[in-house]
Amino acid sequence: MPKPADAVASTAASRTPALTDDLSFLLARANAISLAAGNAALAEHGLKARSYSVLLLTTDDARPSQREIAEFLRLDPSQVVSLVDDLQSRGLVERRTDPADRRANVVVATDAGRRLAAAARETARSAEEHVHGQLTREERQRLTELLRVLAFPER
Amino acid sequence: MPKPADAVASTAASRTPALTDDLSFLLARANAISLAAGNAALAEHGLKARSYSVLLLTTDDARPSQREIAEFLRLDPSQVVSLVDDLQSRGLVERRTDPADRRANVVVATDAGRRLAAAARETARSAEEHVHGQLTREERQRLTELLRVLAFPER
Repeated sequence: MPKPADAVASTAASRTPALTDDLSFLLARANAISLAAGNAALAEHGLKARSYSVLLLTTDDARPSQREIAEFLRLDPSQVVSLVDDLQSRGLVERRTDPADRRANVVVATDAGRRLAAAARETARSAEEHVHGQLTREERQRLTELLRVLAFPER
Repeated sequence: MPKPADAVASTAASRTPALTDDLSFLLARANAISLAAGNAALAEHGLKARSYSVLLLTTDDARPSQREIAEFLRLDPSQVVSLVDDLQSRGLVERRTDPADRRANVVVATDAGRRLAAAARETARSAEEHVHGQLTREERQRLTELLRVLAFPER
């Protein structure tokens, strides 16, 4: 009879100290859990964690280019083009010529895009509250600080 | 003229508090950086972060099934089948019938697989040292503890 997934994970966790002490592995597994929860929650808005992140960036006053979005989200530029295509076809974002560099396009949320981003943000926050509720508020604050150092390295 | 990637990231970071305070986003970005460094370092062994993780699990006395490997690494079962196929074709792992359940297969590293796993582990550790060197030893220890709670939730 198949063991329940949680029992399998606990058994593997107790027997595989090599990986359960491994920061890279823990990052990957925590991210996979967070991503799955985000995707499930954002489905009601027709978004996934990635398209939500792209949409959110396009609501920013900085008016990022597709290349900047790709760099910020650490996605492949071709993935970003496809995500922006999808958001544009739904009338949520527009590509506009960058006034500072007429060869470049920036991506800007439409009014509908801003409204959806705001609604999706509430949803994402609730989902995050649920997933990260394993940690106290102080622990989450500390985790956020430590992850920010790895996510935005100084060099 | 294109801005250097780091300058873009810093600018975006300072202007997009929504995402740089977001634990899910920071997890995704830190994981992407860690994964890229792992993949680059492990290439000398013909491995990537994922195939390395699978190989490492097959050196464990627990003798995991493919389903257990998928659950532990939070990968799609079909991805694991393909990763195991690749490792098997290189003579690094073998599929064996589980003595406890003759309908199931477990995946076990060969001697060559164990040797490669040990070498790759040294490489992965060095790469991790470099990427995570932004944090002090105490900070990394704390980050590991906090991530473990998210990676192996109690419920």
